[in-house]
Amino acid sequence: MTVNAAVAAPTHFEAAYDPARVLKSKEFRVLNADDAALADKEANIACAYNPAHEVHMINKPVPTPREGEVIVHVKSTGICGSDVHFWKHGHIGPTMIVTDECGAGHESAGEVVELGPGVTDLKVGDRVAIEAGVPCSLPDCDPCRTGRYNACPRVVFFSTPPYHGTLTRFHAHPAAWLHKLPDNVSYEEGSLCEPLAVALAGMERAGVRLGDPVVVCGAGPIGLVTLLACHAAGCFPIVITDLFESRLEFARKLVPTVKTVTIGRGQSSEDVATEIKKAAGGPLRVALDCTGVESSIRAAIYSVVFGGKVFVIGVGPDEQSYPFGYCSANEIDLQFQYRYANQYPKAIRLVEGGLINLKPLVTHRFPLEKAVEAFQVAADPSQGAIKVQIQD
Amino acid sequence: MTVNAAVAAPTHFEAAYDPARVLKSKEFRVLNADDAALADKEANIACAYNPAHEVHMINKPVPTPREGEVIVHVKSTGICGSDVHFWKHGHIGPTMIVTDECGAGHESAGEVVELGPGVTDLKVGDRVAIEAGVPCSLPDCDPCRTGRYNACPRVVFFSTPPYHGTLTRFHAHPAAWLHKLPDNVSYEEGSLCEPLAVALAGMERAGVRLGDPVVVCGAGPIGLVTLLACHAAGCFPIVITDLFESRLEFARKLVPTVKTVTIGRGQSSEDVATEIKKAAGGPLRVALDCTGVESSIRAAIYSVVFGGKVFVIGVGPDEQSYPFGYCSANEIDLQFQYRYANQYPKAIRLVEGGLINLKPLVTHRFPLEKAVEAFQVAADPSQGAIKVQIQD
Amino acid sequence: MTVNAAVAAPTHFEAAYDPARVLKSKEFRVLNADDAALADKEANIACAYNPAHEVHMINKPVPTPREGEVIVHVKSTGICGSDVHFWKHGHIGPTMIVTDECGAGHESAGEVVELGPGVTDLKVGDRVAIEAGVPCSLPDCDPCRTGRYNACPRVVFFSTPPYHGTLTRFHAHPAAWLHKLPDNVSYEEGSLCEPLAVALAGMERAGVRLGDPVVVCGAGPIGLVTLLACHAAGCFPIVITDLFESRLEFARKLVPTVKTVTIGRGQSSEDVATEIKKAAGGPLRVALDCTGVESSIRAAIYSVVFGGKVFVIGVGPDEQSYPFGYCSANEIDLQFQYRYANQYPKAIRLVEGGLINLKPLVTHRFPLEKAVEAFQVAADPSQGAIKVQIQD
Amino acid sequence: MTVNAAVAAPTHFEAAYDPARVLKSKEFRVLNADDAALADKEANIACAYNPAHEVHMINKPVPTPREGEVIVHVKSTGICGSDVHFWKHGHIGPTMIVTDECGAGHESAGEVVELGPGVTDLKVGDRVAIEAGVPCSLPDCDPCRTGRYNACPRVVFFSTPPYHGTLTRFHAHPAAWLHKLPDNVSYEEGSLCEPLAVALAGMERAGVRLGDPVVVCGAGPIGLVTLLACHAAGCFPIVITDLFESRLEFARKLVPTVKTVTIGRGQSSEDVATEIKKAAGGPLRVALDCTGVESSIRAAIYSVVFGGKVFVIGVGPDEQSYPFGYCSANEIDLQFQYRYANQYPKAIRLVEGGLINLKPLVTHRFPLEKAVEAFQVAADPSQGAIKVQIQD
Repeated sequence: MTVNAAVAAPTHFEAAYDPARVLKSKEFRVLNADDAALADKEANIACAYNPAHEVHMINKPVPTPREGEVIVHVKSTGICGSDVHFWKHGHIGPTMIVTDECGAGHESAGEVVELGPGVTDLKVGDRVAIEAGVPCSLPDCDPCRTGRYNACPRVVFFSTPPYHGTLTRFHAHPAAWLHKLPDNVSYEEGSLCEPLAVALAGMERAGVRLGDPVVVCGAGPIGLVTLLACHAAGCFPIVITDLFESRLEFARKLVPTVKTVTIGRGQSSEDVATEIKKAAGGPLRVALDCTGVESSIRAAIYSVVFGGKVFVIGVGPDEQSYPFGYCSANEIDLQFQYRYANQYPKAIRLVEGGLINLKPLVTHRFPLEKAVEAFQVAADPSQGAIKVQIQD
Repeated sequence: MTVNAAVAAPTHFEAAYDPARVLKSKEFRVLNADDAALADKEANIACAYNPAHEVHMINKPVPTPREGEVIVHVKSTGICGSDVHFWKHGHIGPTMIVTDECGAGHESAGEVVELGPGVTDLKVGDRVAIEAGVPCSLPDCDPCRTGRYNACPRVVFFSTPPYHGTLTRFHAHPAAWLHKLPDNVSYEEGSLCEPLAVALAGMERAGVRLGDPVVVCGAGPIGLVTLLACHAAGCFPIVITDLFESRLEFARKLVPTVKTVTIGRGQSSEDVATEIKKAAGGPLRVALDCTGVESSIRAAIYSVVFGGKVFVIGVGPDEQSYPFGYCSANEIDLQFQYRYANQYPKAIRLVEGGLINLKPLVTHRFPLEKAVEAFQVAADPSQGAIKVQIQD
Repeated sequence: MTVNAAVAAPTHFEAAYDPARVLKSKEFRVLNADDAALADKEANIACAYNPAHEVHMINKPVPTPREGEVIVHVKSTGICGSDVHFWKHGHIGPTMIVTDECGAGHESAGEVVELGPGVTDLKVGDRVAIEAGVPCSLPDCDPCRTGRYNACPRVVFFSTPPYHGTLTRFHAHPAAWLHKLPDNVSYEEGSLCEPLAVALAGMERAGVRLGDPVVVCGAGPIGLVTLLACHAAGCFPIVITDLFESRLEFARKLVPTVKTVTIGRGQSSEDVATEIKKAAGGPLRVALDCTGVESSIRAAIYSVVFGGKVFVIGVGPDEQSYPFGYCSANEIDLQFQYRYANQYPKAIRLVEGGLINLKPLVTHRFPLEKAVEAFQVAADPSQGAIKVQIQD
Repeated sequence: MTVNAAVAAPTHFEAAYDPARVLKSKEFRVLNADDAALADKEANIACAYNPAHEVHMINKPVPTPREGEVIVHVKSTGICGSDVHFWKHGHIGPTMIVTDECGAGHESAGEVVELGPGVTDLKVGDRVAIEAGVPCSLPDCDPCRTGRYNACPRVVFFSTPPYHGTLTRFHAHPAAWLHKLPDNVSYEEGSLCEPLAVALAGMERAGVRLGDPVVVCGAGPIGLVTLLACHAAGCFPIVITDLFESRLEFARKLVPTVKTVTIGRGQSSEDVATEIKKAAGGPLRVALDCTGVESSIRAAIYSVVFGGKVFVIGVGPDEQSYPFGYCSANEIDLQFQYRYANQYPKAIRLVEGGLINLKPLVTHRFPLEKAVEAFQVAADPSQGAIKVQIQD
């Protein structure tokens, strides 16, 4: 039987991670810059946004692990564009709305410091990446039962309102959704496995294969991770586009064989596509759009071969206009990605095997107590940040 | 080596079917209603449109078969929406433009009446369906070499300008692109294999499978053929939509188990989708749009399950706006079809095996010499025609 | 983290369905033919096999529903070849071994008579098909998390030792693994959805599509269900083979357009393949072997086209010899099926929609208290049974 | 219409490359070691095998290019295991039989020295890889029309009897089946694109993807090329097996992260599989067998995960025995490769892009006039040759 999620009682996880447990706790408070908790290494401080578009540090209770959970001391967390977006805009799409103080962060790795009952596959001291989305895993949930758990309507995704995030010192997490890091993979790389998982999910569904000519649209963090992953997958040639030459220069440092196309403000999508095809020496088989911007997706459409694929990893404005006739006459496939499922083990293997080197992506690092500064850098384009990390 | 089609010399077929061979022949003339040729069973009369948006009968030379060709006495031809569109609008998309008298028709079947040199697999008297698109088949053509010959940039597609169509009495055709009809498949059914091939091509790429819940958007000729094919493929439930209740009634006669949704003028796509899902008892796995209309495609998008597919078989206006955010949050796949490849043998098998009964689709029949009347009926919505056939 | 099933503690379901709860209960006893329990409609009688190759009725405690469970009054159960095999041979493969009294049956449907705590999507009186394999559904189980739960190493599959089966009067089952039957689907059909699920799982992975020419090898229960499903999927032509003309006659009654090939004892696989291809009018795209017999699979290999697929649904002897060189020179794909995942909703839809009519498959019916007689008929080839049903 | 190849007249290519044109020419003769032709740079000398299991140099007419052909001065040719096999055993399988003198070689690249009529996409001086199999490309050939031209029953495959090979000085070849080499790809690498095409064809059909754990069985030339291609495709971990530690050492030099398993003579396949899984840290998703040896394929079967794939690229003895029960209980997919289609452009791209470095595979080089010595080295396992090249 398929359960009707809309009317069902809260799942085990929805109840366990109910934000009221934080917000109504006696420990909860917003921290001033001189609060002693910021210097207390035992305090469970975190960084949060709220409906007033503020970002600040908060104090939370130190969690106790329940059945199947462990406590992770979060060591490294990257700031994602969505974190900044929740702070600045208060929502993503019509359903994810910041209605109260909400802890940020979902790109995290850390050290296991305490085991809850029934946990046998992890031990204290294990180094783990945190998979931030915890689906219900119930057999009456079609997405969970069929392996597509990113569609679970009752997922607890940390840092997506109302659930608090992993940019905190101590985080209680189900052991099943932690992934052990090999010795040669750092916490920082472990946290970067989250954006890598996004790119890998898209590439897996896009059917990117060895020897494919591809274009990656956009050289922001997801675009650059996608570039690294396409290179690891043996794509050639690879073209990457962006509005900013500085980002393309960064891309060329990451993958010297990449071809770059700088997009001019106001340049038509057809023109951009012509340049992309010129750089590649012909039309592409797959375009991976990491911008979510209409003009970029249109350029992608015009760049691919008959029967080619435009795969949109990026998130963007709700309504977009596409050249239907061209898509139709050229059998263009348009696909879209929502988060990821079953990608963490692969992401970690690729880093472990030296096939993808994520380290150069980190341009700025801050200690946990200065997370607010980190957010300010991440939100300021003039800083040229690719990935800002907060470490503890 | 991949050849550059744009600059290459005409292919064998481009030269063989050069319309100048008709237009500059001494036999060519536009026929008045009282022209004796219309009553002459030996005359190669045909129906043509021109840039002045006229449709009329023309007289053409009787062809002589070349190497690898046979002459087919065309027995049955259906009128396609594109035939009417070329007549009324003079072009489809930016590249297919009526610039001279151009013979109509590409849904045809007939009898082999003469064999050219080298033809060994057909004999006089064989009954055949005509595959109207003849690709170059050269190994330096990527689409032809890789089995996707509908993308051949140098295809000769009969009735697509400048190439004359198969709505003619005697048609010279490469034997390799004719398909023998089994005894239990009539000429009329043979000609209907063309729209069936369109539907089958879309369904094959859409991955429609046994037991899939699907919605077919649009109950015109392609929509109804698609409905028949989905039913033959074991889809259940099947929902079909249209603006006209009369067409939906026709659909219920074809497939009694089909669920129908009448779309109201001005009804929102979200509302239509709600009705579709209500009729189906839940979201669909695949939506097959046979309208090419933006609002219909939008309703399709809102009708399918997370990870579902919206497959557009219909042709429509170039620019369309889609709900990007919804597609993204629900991993909707959007795909498009252009003609077909490798579908005729399958289409004929399905009719032969009794799995698809195309006969009820023919609502009007005319003799060849009255083809102009047939066009007038096909173009007049008040006539309620589904498929108009011209027979000889 | 992926759990190590070999060393892990019993799962919730392994503990809940521990056969000791039956075997060590005070109610448990083997029933003589004159035991009053056989006539007591409140008694939870069942049919069981044991290591001494006996089949007999047993008495079990009436179950009480636990959290998430319901009690089903089993109304209809089909006997599967594996039930007979466990009785006669005491094991299937090296791991499934009858070591004690073990209740038979896994093809069942029935009525919900009692709800356990937390069950909200079913109510007393609901008519349901029972999915007999209950996987662990834990997120640290790779097969369960990735939608391939038939591979769950800790599945509780009722009637596979040591777990007792569903050929019993009252059966406690997790609500999530019950499937509501529409009004127009009988209990008998509901129980037949189990072998249909097997066929559908194979066909889905085999990629059987509309218009495919296929051969089904073997016209036993699984072969006949596969035939029905291939016909519903629009395959044409369909050839079916068997050693017994009587079974082929049964096949022709089910699907009049099917072509049949009677296999002679000692006939070479190449010869059989020649006859199959002659019946089909050419090589097949897919062969679905429902015998598990080496000579049959070899005939299947020789029957398919270059690039074709031989999909083995049948179970057979461990070591088999195949024509490697032929497979290699013809790119034959060999695939195998193990049980099924995510097929029940589809199976029920197909029956509900009238696309597959399972009713004619039932040749014999017995009341529950005469289940031993049912087994004797099922095990005796001279009885010509296709599917024997036990009803209550 | 599908043509019946068995009874059809010779195709254009079958006639053009009829070996009688060589064997019955006045220039044809077997060359003694002191024949002046061996030193004559204008002579079209070649290396051939015959039914008496001899390999020697022959003299052939210098070809004149026909319509659509060019003359290639062959610069570099690798010896394939099949060349040696034809020499030593006189046949491969039941249909490819050496019945006369037959020129060897099909892994070649060279320089265009003369253009035939109608060739516009190549010019004298172009550097090209030769695709040695020339399919009929006729639209009535199902494999050619559907993009699977490696199945063409009327292919002219140079060096497969009766067609002479490309291990010759001057070779006439259809321009459409030549592939331009970029400046940074040498003739030697161009010739190595042939075995790379074999590996890529297998990997494409096997669905090898980024991050897949794979095992390559066999570290001969095809195994090593497959290893390189798997590494380029981002597989990790990769295990490679062989009987000879020296070959595994070679493999580790090519790909330092590869894990190696030395197979002991007489070791059971289950044991080998255990070692493979130990080296990989778990079962593999894909096994690529490059040996064609039964015990190796069996080890591959036991090495992969439930639902995994064993893809056999290697060629081997016709009859092989597989563990059916294991395959069945674990849904193992067995697939096989025959030559390749549409792989050359991709192979060249991968070399051009630096993703695959083929150069280290060449262990021995000989001038054309010493091709017989090259064959002797290639056939002598004690020489430790991986790839022997003959250059001119």
